[in-house]
Amino acid sequence: MASIKVKFGRAVRKLREDADYSQESFADAIGVHRTYMGTVERGRGNPTLDMIGKIARGLKVSLKQLFEAVENESG
Amino acid sequence: MASIKVKFGRAVRKLREDADYSQESFADAIGVHRTYMGTVERGRGNPTLDMIGKIARGLKVSLKQLFEAVENESG
Repeated sequence: MASIKVKFGRAVRKLREDADYSQESFADAIGVHRTYMGTVERGRGNPTLDMIGKIARGLKVSLKQLFEAVENESG
Repeated sequence: MASIKVKFGRAVRKLREDADYSQESFADAIGVHRTYMGTVERGRGNPTLDMIGKIARGLKVSLKQLFEAVENESG
């Protein structure tokens, strides 16, 4: 079973692509470095609650919606 | 409006009390220090994704349920 970090990264990548953001434009929009977003999307980051809130706002989804997507990730 | 950390702390405290855990017994159950749980519940901690997963498992709620409770916190 994939770790919570891997599932989170996959969900964020899908939601970002659904929102027609490139990784770079999304990173710029929320004020983080592009390589950091890459790390998170590959399941290698361990974002804090504040960062998770920032990502959700950037994706224009609620925290509940974001974690519903995380839980729907298989593996 | 309360910060995400304050809302998270309030939601965790309510769910922990609903589960009839003391702060200390809950901290022991998930393997963190009691003072750390106090910090999180007072909205002073910025827990990582891994720690949030650990807290949700300890509370026996899904991540979606946990963040639904966070969003239902007023203020």
